[in-house]
Amino acid sequence: MAERYVYDFDEPTTGGRELLGGKGIGLAEMTLMGVPVPAGFTITTDACRAYMREGDLPAGLEDEVDEHVRRLEERTGKRFGSDDDPLLVSVRSGAAVSMPGMMDTILNLGLNDEAAEGLAARTENGRFAFDSYRRLIQMFGEVVEGIDGHRFESALAALKEERGVQQDTDLTDDDLRELVETYKEIYRDGSGSEFPTGARDQLLRAVRAVFASWENPRAQVYRRAHEIADDLGTAVNIVQMVFGNKGDRSGTGVAFTRDPSTGESGLYGEFLANAQGEDVVAGIRTPQPIEAMRETLPKAFAQFVETMARLEEHYRDMQDIEFTVEDEQLYLLQTRSAKRTAAAALKAAVSMVEEGLISREDAVGRIDPAQLDQLLHPMIDPKAELEVAARGLNASPGAASGAIVFDADTAVERAKLGPVILVRWETTPDDIHGMIASQGILTVHGGMTSHAAVVARGMGKPCVASCEELSLGEGTAKIGDHNLQEGDVITIDGGTGRVFVGEVPLVPPQINDDFETILGWADVQRRLKVRANADNPEDAIRARAFGAEGIGLCRTEHMFFGDRLSVVQEMILADTESGRRAALDRLLPFQQSDFEGIFEAMAGLPVTIRLLDPPLHEFLPDEQDATDEKMRTRIRALKEANPMLGSRGCRLGLMYPEIYEMQVRAIARAAKAVLDRSGDVPLVEVMHPLVGFREELARLRDLTESVWEEEAPGLDHLVGTMIEVPRAALRADQVAEVADFFSFGTNDLTQTTLAFSRDDAEGKFLTRYLEDGVLERNPFEVLDIEGVGDLMRIAVERGRATKPEIKLGICGEHGGEPRSIAFCHELGLDYVSCSPFRVPLARLAAAQAALRESGAGFYAAAGG
Amino acid sequence: MAERYVYDFDEPTTGGRELLGGKGIGLAEMTLMGVPVPAGFTITTDACRAYMREGDLPAGLEDEVDEHVRRLEERTGKRFGSDDDPLLVSVRSGAAVSMPGMMDTILNLGLNDEAAEGLAARTENGRFAFDSYRRLIQMFGEVVEGIDGHRFESALAALKEERGVQQDTDLTDDDLRELVETYKEIYRDGSGSEFPTGARDQLLRAVRAVFASWENPRAQVYRRAHEIADDLGTAVNIVQMVFGNKGDRSGTGVAFTRDPSTGESGLYGEFLANAQGEDVVAGIRTPQPIEAMRETLPKAFAQFVETMARLEEHYRDMQDIEFTVEDEQLYLLQTRSAKRTAAAALKAAVSMVEEGLISREDAVGRIDPAQLDQLLHPMIDPKAELEVAARGLNASPGAASGAIVFDADTAVERAKLGPVILVRWETTPDDIHGMIASQGILTVHGGMTSHAAVVARGMGKPCVASCEELSLGEGTAKIGDHNLQEGDVITIDGGTGRVFVGEVPLVPPQINDDFETILGWADVQRRLKVRANADNPEDAIRARAFGAEGIGLCRTEHMFFGDRLSVVQEMILADTESGRRAALDRLLPFQQSDFEGIFEAMAGLPVTIRLLDPPLHEFLPDEQDATDEKMRTRIRALKEANPMLGSRGCRLGLMYPEIYEMQVRAIARAAKAVLDRSGDVPLVEVMHPLVGFREELARLRDLTESVWEEEAPGLDHLVGTMIEVPRAALRADQVAEVADFFSFGTNDLTQTTLAFSRDDAEGKFLTRYLEDGVLERNPFEVLDIEGVGDLMRIAVERGRATKPEIKLGICGEHGGEPRSIAFCHELGLDYVSCSPFRVPLARLAAAQAALRESGAGFYAAAGG
Repeated sequence: MAERYVYDFDEPTTGGRELLGGKGIGLAEMTLMGVPVPAGFTITTDACRAYMREGDLPAGLEDEVDEHVRRLEERTGKRFGSDDDPLLVSVRSGAAVSMPGMMDTILNLGLNDEAAEGLAARTENGRFAFDSYRRLIQMFGEVVEGIDGHRFESALAALKEERGVQQDTDLTDDDLRELVETYKEIYRDGSGSEFPTGARDQLLRAVRAVFASWENPRAQVYRRAHEIADDLGTAVNIVQMVFGNKGDRSGTGVAFTRDPSTGESGLYGEFLANAQGEDVVAGIRTPQPIEAMRETLPKAFAQFVETMARLEEHYRDMQDIEFTVEDEQLYLLQTRSAKRTAAAALKAAVSMVEEGLISREDAVGRIDPAQLDQLLHPMIDPKAELEVAARGLNASPGAASGAIVFDADTAVERAKLGPVILVRWETTPDDIHGMIASQGILTVHGGMTSHAAVVARGMGKPCVASCEELSLGEGTAKIGDHNLQEGDVITIDGGTGRVFVGEVPLVPPQINDDFETILGWADVQRRLKVRANADNPEDAIRARAFGAEGIGLCRTEHMFFGDRLSVVQEMILADTESGRRAALDRLLPFQQSDFEGIFEAMAGLPVTIRLLDPPLHEFLPDEQDATDEKMRTRIRALKEANPMLGSRGCRLGLMYPEIYEMQVRAIARAAKAVLDRSGDVPLVEVMHPLVGFREELARLRDLTESVWEEEAPGLDHLVGTMIEVPRAALRADQVAEVADFFSFGTNDLTQTTLAFSRDDAEGKFLTRYLEDGVLERNPFEVLDIEGVGDLMRIAVERGRATKPEIKLGICGEHGGEPRSIAFCHELGLDYVSCSPFRVPLARLAAAQAALRESGAGFYAAAGG
Repeated sequence: MAERYVYDFDEPTTGGRELLGGKGIGLAEMTLMGVPVPAGFTITTDACRAYMREGDLPAGLEDEVDEHVRRLEERTGKRFGSDDDPLLVSVRSGAAVSMPGMMDTILNLGLNDEAAEGLAARTENGRFAFDSYRRLIQMFGEVVEGIDGHRFESALAALKEERGVQQDTDLTDDDLRELVETYKEIYRDGSGSEFPTGARDQLLRAVRAVFASWENPRAQVYRRAHEIADDLGTAVNIVQMVFGNKGDRSGTGVAFTRDPSTGESGLYGEFLANAQGEDVVAGIRTPQPIEAMRETLPKAFAQFVETMARLEEHYRDMQDIEFTVEDEQLYLLQTRSAKRTAAAALKAAVSMVEEGLISREDAVGRIDPAQLDQLLHPMIDPKAELEVAARGLNASPGAASGAIVFDADTAVERAKLGPVILVRWETTPDDIHGMIASQGILTVHGGMTSHAAVVARGMGKPCVASCEELSLGEGTAKIGDHNLQEGDVITIDGGTGRVFVGEVPLVPPQINDDFETILGWADVQRRLKVRANADNPEDAIRARAFGAEGIGLCRTEHMFFGDRLSVVQEMILADTESGRRAALDRLLPFQQSDFEGIFEAMAGLPVTIRLLDPPLHEFLPDEQDATDEKMRTRIRALKEANPMLGSRGCRLGLMYPEIYEMQVRAIARAAKAVLDRSGDVPLVEVMHPLVGFREELARLRDLTESVWEEEAPGLDHLVGTMIEVPRAALRADQVAEVADFFSFGTNDLTQTTLAFSRDDAEGKFLTRYLEDGVLERNPFEVLDIEGVGDLMRIAVERGRATKPEIKLGICGEHGGEPRSIAFCHELGLDYVSCSPFRVPLARLAAAQAALRESGAGFYAAAGG
């Protein structure tokens, strides 16, 4: 038996989302629930994969489509391709993972000159019939033949100007007949052939085009940005057309079951009377709030409200719905889990737990940890005196300042120099790379569900949309009264929709009760401890406020800069050990006081202090800035071909033991002083960096213990090492003999394991690799689990074989990245450590990893 | 029962060399064979290890020593500490591995004022008795109390001058009595105490001192240079004194059973009448050839000749013997496998096979592969017109030129600038580090068995000794008529003993029949193939002459320099791909002709060509030398923080595919041209460097195959990768899917796995690590088997799991290092590849690895 590729919406299947796509499964489920949806069927993602493999529709598919079209005709009582009362269908893409606007859709298939006349006669609405027809020609022309859509738009605009009308709806029946002829000419000119008149031909060509759109460049960019696999493919839904543009008793809209910005209960959405859905999504006409429907279409509105409640109860999650009203009859076209802001996600989850809709585990499981970042974005300082230059829609929360750029490519370029704000009429999927590079997005046009707004919320970037006080010229922008050019700095506040000229003071975000509630639930679930990387008392205090359970990495080199730098340089320039010791003696009290502050901030929690790591030349100026010949000579002597692999880390400690001695002495004295003063026992962990050989750590451990014994005898402490050199991971069995703990320094471990110098990779070959798809992800952002992760697994196994009780953590930046945190959980590490702002995210990600392991209550975070 | 630490020479023990040391096991074996040796006993290396651990002699040892001294007294009929006919003993170090001159020996223990008088009376030879006594005071003072030996020597010299005599032997009985008093004063002054008179006290203090000498700095340096473990410890032999200085019927000597320079059969050695052994070894008096003994001491000589033959037959190897004749009675003091030149080792091994003494496997097994290097040293060009400045003893073969240095520390310093020749009166163990740093050694004094000669032969460095036409001043040397200073260049020829002023033309060494014979036998034994690293036809031809079975690494970057550099720079400076292609088109014919020459030289053998590896900036000048602004800009753009981990290797091939395309095209065209011309099918292996991810190689494989298909369709070839990035080793399972072969690039794999930039490690922290003993060996010379080797093992296992037939090799410098080659054999690699000059060594080392594995016929290479 041949493989089956097509399923009616009311046919049960076990294939699920992967097979039918998100839209297809939604339509099937709604059909089975009895929710009003148009009739139709789904061509599976299997068929798309076969198409990609074979370059054409797989054998048997056309017959299956014919068979299902026949059934659709039976159900609707209309004939596809009929001149009289034609069945019209849409062809809609729908992948397993939502990719809004990325792939193609064609409406109104089945129309030609005769059918349009038939439809006009049957509906007694020639305007509607020919409007539908001209839309078909345009969409078909754009999607199937790649004709520039602006050519059609211009013809429409020219006709409106000729007729002296403002709105499309003001055009008459005859105007539209004329427009259809113009569109057919544009089609002929653009494609070199006539617009196809056969309905079956239209349908099959449309299906091929939608499959092909999976591979279009903007879809590829989107998948890379959202880390969606390239081989999933899309399903295609063939849906009976229902018409929101049949007149005033018709319309179309999108809605959320709760507010996607705040998570507050209550309907939230937009409605556009006498329009098709594309008009809403494309932001071409600005829609009304959903409430407007209550008065104009009360029956449909009541049915709509009831349906929304049923859907949310069924899916036990906030839904994002597309619907159309055709002659007061409601049709749901699509439902999916709603994309939402972090605040909304938290609020909705907490509310649903309170409402008994979901469990606490569900609530924890469905928050996207990366999205939490949004809450932790800076906001405009409420105390600042501000002059608002313009106002727009508060489309995605958070505030950002940056240089104006007017196109996506410039955004990417200029972002290398500093933060940029992308300013556009409206964004399109072609702008994705520029949006990724920008700090925020400002648009003239489009609503809350416009491309810019949806994508910005997904990315957690501020967006102000529909800013009518903004107008764009050639490389210039006028914002209110201000004439600005590329490079001028503005600030946007996506939470309030305000736009400011120049930089405006920002403050760290406030954390609300929902946030605390969810994280409290998360803390119950997780097994991994979460620590923070913090180098000074202020960061330590902030980290603790965010819930950090200790410091996993306190870098001491930052303490060598500032007004201490001259003493550090004196130390480096000294010719003798005694000269170095003299300078180090002066540094000691500073270091001690740094450590005292940190121990006090972290009372009761462990603090891991890493001894000096960077090469000494980092503390000296460039050669040309040297103040004297001696310094120049020393700079030259310390110069290294590959400093990353040179005299740094514990190699310094072994070459200049007096440096590490001073640091250990400062730590031990600080611990003792804090204990004496407060009675709290500081939990100190002394960490030696860049160890590759057991012997290195053995000697440094001896040094540490002997200084400790002099300064703070009897005071408990641990001595351990970073694992950031591949050899240390491989020989973790030996290193563990002399280590109380390992902390994976995955930044450097990634550099060494991949032979990627981060400084030389990013913006250079690594960026190229990501663009070309050689790599799917930046390994400095998401841990390279197959490579670096494998080395970590070896280190954990071998280290524990020697010392089962050894304490294991991670302090690279990956310690704050959800996928990497999940891997650390699987490895059985004791803790992750990340920057203070990422601590909440890490707490949540750690909980989700634990939930996933137990299989309890977890399902994918928001995104339909 | 307490551990036993002491064994008489005639007591059987199973402990062997590790327990009794080389000297102890030799004395025990000779005793059991009935060879005349003095009576005595051995304190084991166990006792030394206990001493190192506890800081004193282990419990029970003193009682054991007393017991064995008692037995010695019984056997010799003399009493230890007697005033009348005292038993005198020597205390001699003897580790499991020979370390000539590195540790301490004390003779004549048991003497004091009364015993000396008693001995004088008993032997009727006061001169002998007091000469022995003064020697005891000096040695005991030096070894036990650390008194400077020169103080004793000066006193002796002063006395001789006072008496107007030349030779020690010209001093009278009374002179020596007076000298003893002077020596006791020196002892008192240097140690702060009286010379100890108790025999037992002397003995135990001497034993302690010998144990402690295991840890003296020169022994530590020697062990590091010779890669001897620090925790072996030394045994101590307590031997009845026999006296070569009792008069003209006495004497002492050292001898080899064959010539240690050439391996020719026949006695070879030196004899010094009326002297103790130390006089020979220290080179203080120049000895006579061994034949001199035939006339003066015919009976002892006959016994000596017969004993030598028995020893060689017993040990089935060339022996190095120390002996003493006391009143015409022969005593063998020591026998061991003789250190010998490579030529001698080969000649002796081939002869012994011919004589039926050993098997071919034995012969292959006992040549030290590292020593073969010696044969491959350059020699003075025989056609050169030379002016010999001076002549000395041909103490160690080979020729070398270099700047004169007069002390070991300067040798180490100046060797950083270029080759140096160490010029000394005579070397001592304190000079070891300077000898290691030098290209050759020239001494005024000392014979073939002097320190300089023995050590130089062991190191395979040229040495001219006993050069009487050389005299040394303060920082100056006079060689013949030439007055030279530090830094002036000389050339020495250790094969003939000639010394030249200035640089002299050298030629590559000639390989003799013994060499070919042994390597022929080795080739039968080995499983590993041996290839060479060669970048041009000349090197390929040389490599083939040395027995290379292919080229394992042909680096193409060398082909980008010279007169092609300007075209390469043009390519790098081009702004567009088409500009790059234009320059590459001009490079292509050059590359093609390079490859044709190599394929012709290697007809019938595989050739692995590595595509361009170094970062592009290596082909551009320094920024300040740039010729124009465009070049300066490009240089800045290409600058990298850590070029080792930057845009190089296959990353270039993926960023600029046109470069690799050109190279593959040149290779394919060359292969086709050579095939068409010669009918020989070139066996081409295209190698992509620095791969870390399967996807990199998959793309480059596609590129390679598609160019190949255009240029040489149907012509067999392989496509593979270096394994030099840790990730590639870890994910060898994936990389193997698209690789026909792996070649371990252990130079870079060592840099990445250890995070050691070679440029920044050697001379900097790595040198410090080696000095301080953090590392035992330079991992760039000897493969880090526990770290890098573990990664190789993982790669082999995982690569073979995916593709059992995958071809595996190594092309780092470790491919020419014996220990690393043995590891490659254990790993089951298919081949090693090394520099052409090291190919013979690799063939031998590979055979030894195979023999060691089979357990057949192998025993340790030369060295007692």
